[in-house]
Amino acid sequence: MTIETVLGLDIGTTSTKAVLFDLNGGEVARGASRPYRTLTRQPGWVEQEPEEVWQAVVTAVSQITAQIGPDVSVAAICMAAQSGSLLPAAADGAPVYPMITWLDGRTQEIIRQWKEAGSEELVKSISGWSLYPGLPLPNIAWLSEHDLLAFTAARRFFSVNDFITHRLTGQFVTNPSNAGGMQLVDIRTGNWSRRLCALAGISPSQLSAIQPAGAIIGEILPEARRAMGLPEGAVLVNGGHDQGCTALGLGVNAPGKLLLACGTAWVFTGVMAAPEMDSVPAALDWNFHVLPQRYTISQSLGGLGASLEWWVNQAWRGVDGAATRQAMFAALDAELAGTEGDGRLLFFPLTGGHDGPATTQRGGFAGLQLSHSRADMARAIMESAAFELRWALQPVQQAGLPVDRLWMVGGAAQSPHWPQILADVTGIPIRLPAYDNWPALGTAVLAGVGIGAFESIADGLARFQKPARDVLPDAEMRGRYDEMFGLYQEKDILTTEAQRHGDF
Amino acid sequence: MTIETVLGLDIGTTSTKAVLFDLNGGEVARGASRPYRTLTRQPGWVEQEPEEVWQAVVTAVSQITAQIGPDVSVAAICMAAQSGSLLPAAADGAPVYPMITWLDGRTQEIIRQWKEAGSEELVKSISGWSLYPGLPLPNIAWLSEHDLLAFTAARRFFSVNDFITHRLTGQFVTNPSNAGGMQLVDIRTGNWSRRLCALAGISPSQLSAIQPAGAIIGEILPEARRAMGLPEGAVLVNGGHDQGCTALGLGVNAPGKLLLACGTAWVFTGVMAAPEMDSVPAALDWNFHVLPQRYTISQSLGGLGASLEWWVNQAWRGVDGAATRQAMFAALDAELAGTEGDGRLLFFPLTGGHDGPATTQRGGFAGLQLSHSRADMARAIMESAAFELRWALQPVQQAGLPVDRLWMVGGAAQSPHWPQILADVTGIPIRLPAYDNWPALGTAVLAGVGIGAFESIADGLARFQKPARDVLPDAEMRGRYDEMFGLYQEKDILTTEAQRHGDF
Repeated sequence: MTIETVLGLDIGTTSTKAVLFDLNGGEVARGASRPYRTLTRQPGWVEQEPEEVWQAVVTAVSQITAQIGPDVSVAAICMAAQSGSLLPAAADGAPVYPMITWLDGRTQEIIRQWKEAGSEELVKSISGWSLYPGLPLPNIAWLSEHDLLAFTAARRFFSVNDFITHRLTGQFVTNPSNAGGMQLVDIRTGNWSRRLCALAGISPSQLSAIQPAGAIIGEILPEARRAMGLPEGAVLVNGGHDQGCTALGLGVNAPGKLLLACGTAWVFTGVMAAPEMDSVPAALDWNFHVLPQRYTISQSLGGLGASLEWWVNQAWRGVDGAATRQAMFAALDAELAGTEGDGRLLFFPLTGGHDGPATTQRGGFAGLQLSHSRADMARAIMESAAFELRWALQPVQQAGLPVDRLWMVGGAAQSPHWPQILADVTGIPIRLPAYDNWPALGTAVLAGVGIGAFESIADGLARFQKPARDVLPDAEMRGRYDEMFGLYQEKDILTTEAQRHGDF
Repeated sequence: MTIETVLGLDIGTTSTKAVLFDLNGGEVARGASRPYRTLTRQPGWVEQEPEEVWQAVVTAVSQITAQIGPDVSVAAICMAAQSGSLLPAAADGAPVYPMITWLDGRTQEIIRQWKEAGSEELVKSISGWSLYPGLPLPNIAWLSEHDLLAFTAARRFFSVNDFITHRLTGQFVTNPSNAGGMQLVDIRTGNWSRRLCALAGISPSQLSAIQPAGAIIGEILPEARRAMGLPEGAVLVNGGHDQGCTALGLGVNAPGKLLLACGTAWVFTGVMAAPEMDSVPAALDWNFHVLPQRYTISQSLGGLGASLEWWVNQAWRGVDGAATRQAMFAALDAELAGTEGDGRLLFFPLTGGHDGPATTQRGGFAGLQLSHSRADMARAIMESAAFELRWALQPVQQAGLPVDRLWMVGGAAQSPHWPQILADVTGIPIRLPAYDNWPALGTAVLAGVGIGAFESIADGLARFQKPARDVLPDAEMRGRYDEMFGLYQEKDILTTEAQRHGDF
């Protein structure tokens, strides 16, 4: 008897992972690449070698096919890809320039000029995205201004999804959410925008064709199949942006449900039924969900996790019996269990926040006393992330958008303390699902739907259901945090003011 | 041949030390008591058992006499005693109440009332001391108000010096600087003040007779001699306040020379030739030096050392290979060597400071970045102590008082980094003398003068000379710190303002 399987690919910013599932949602095998190298040819540039990303896919998939027996058949692959990286390619799809990642900062000046010229409103009203240095729209414009040779050689502009899709199938196809991340799509029509393409300096014909998520793109090319050990007939199903695939996997697919992804960067993502941009605060960026007739609204809070990582590295560095990162965090967790918080020790993040996700600012501790321990200080850092989240969610709630529950994933979700702090500070119940590769799971559901193995996405999700734990706000702590949040906002505004004046 | 020696006693707030010197300043033997216990019969009270302090003296001296052979003769003892603790005693000198230490806080309300009634100016203008909760003046007043039984039983009021003097010689004698610390002396006449005694509710006859430092009080009583193993004929020479004895030992005996004692509390002490109180900022307290015709002016900056101690205990706690306090500080020093400071990371002390030595406030770190290490943060703490010192010295310098050099002693003087930071921030050269018990050394000089073994104090000091190292301000760092000090003051004023408004 042959076991039919679907393969979810998670192409992240630093490495690629692959998970093979049977059609009941059980894991069959896993694979993972090494991290890609990062090129910094100029200060502030963050590029990657496209060939290395492709080889990462080959490695991750090959690891899986090497593990499975002849009774296991891989019917389909589907991809969750990070959004925002740009790859200029020739007409035949061959790269003509390194991949410019979304972490690259070369377009600062262009962004400044566009903002000065008042273009942000136009861009936002069409694409749904505010202007950020790392997105393909400004990066293409940068190439046309600063590297005409590369710009002229580039007949096509890929997202990483489009590049891998072309390598796998030979087709120039993308999906709504990865296309949306290029900031060149009209969010209301779902088509490439002529005006945004004109701003970038290109024609829509230089971009891949937008097709629905969950639809078969085509068979995997023989050469790619052989390199990865895939069987004849295996197809590629159109996937999407990794945040969207994660949200799909978690069941965050209707208004009121929010995904809180706490990785290096913290991003919350909600769901809308229509692209009614005026109904949502401007700080939120719009994209297509990987579900039809669904849109995502999301806001990055930046690297809020970095402050705790920094603190643990400082205050638990070299501690006896805590040689690994894991052991250091275990020591932190044990010491945190003895803390209560006195309501007046405040931390201000060293990077990220409700109003400046991309900047690395100066923060600090206020209200410190001799009685405070390093664990008290760690608690204050966790609380600061919760305050920033609450601060960012306030305009969302004030706009009348429901925020019923937060699905929390990523490193901070593993903490025995942080989810409770987030629930207590925001007053929102938090769901902690017990799984660790949601992008791959979400795409596996899309793959199963694409090949007709599942009747619907709901059917697929039911098969892939994972256990979850709910963390509810504590009423007493809620009251204490209300007061503390007031202090936090007041003090933060003072500090921001002082920083603007160049004092700090 | 008999070796003649003098014994310096250092009766501190927590324990008693004794050092035996030959007449060329060489150490012959050392002794030390265990720490005295602290009684806290009521919250905020800090008392000690007088008998335990006396036994500490017996222990420390006995340890010395047990070590020396019959060829060593102890000719004289002299005492440096902490100032401020109060012991109510019967007419025969027997204690009738525990010793109320200067750390005791029971008189807060009396101080508040006196300040409200405008008495502080009067007290300060006579005694030279501002009102502090721990001094004998308010503590005697407290007894008369709250414990009439004890107050009536007490026919005498001792400082710790007077108590030990009486136990050693049977005489009711004190010295100018220990008397001054009771806040009951007229700083201009050197006599007990009738007005201050009246404010306390007692008569000057209840206090010991003030005799000059460096004069023989009398022979040690036979019973005391036997308990401590001292020879017949050994005398007690009148000593003084421990800060004054330290200053004497260091040669801080003329205007322009400043002692910076960096123990648990940081105190700087300068020298004046006359009690011209209007010539000195009001924040400075006056006392008699242990030298004739010399006065000390001093200001406590409170527990500035406590913040670094706290930080090391947090950020180096449990660090591999740093099990002891000494090893933790060695690890700190090694890591500090790699830091430079970026001029914008600021720390605000958790206790102490230029304007509130006695309060434990809320402080913190500002201007923190992800690139900062725990050692950078330690440097910021050291810098904050230097800023507080500079801030406190500014009015002194503005009043035209010379500040040519700082003699630095205590824990912070052992740091390979802190003295340089202090020199760079204040612009004042710092002298680091290589010795560790200056109060005992200073009293040994007084003892030698008292018994006529030294022609003069200058002669004695020459015999006891210790090597010293000078740390000079670095011009470039000076400029950087000028700017940083401006930031520090600005930010500190903002924070203090906010704390006054009850926000923090």
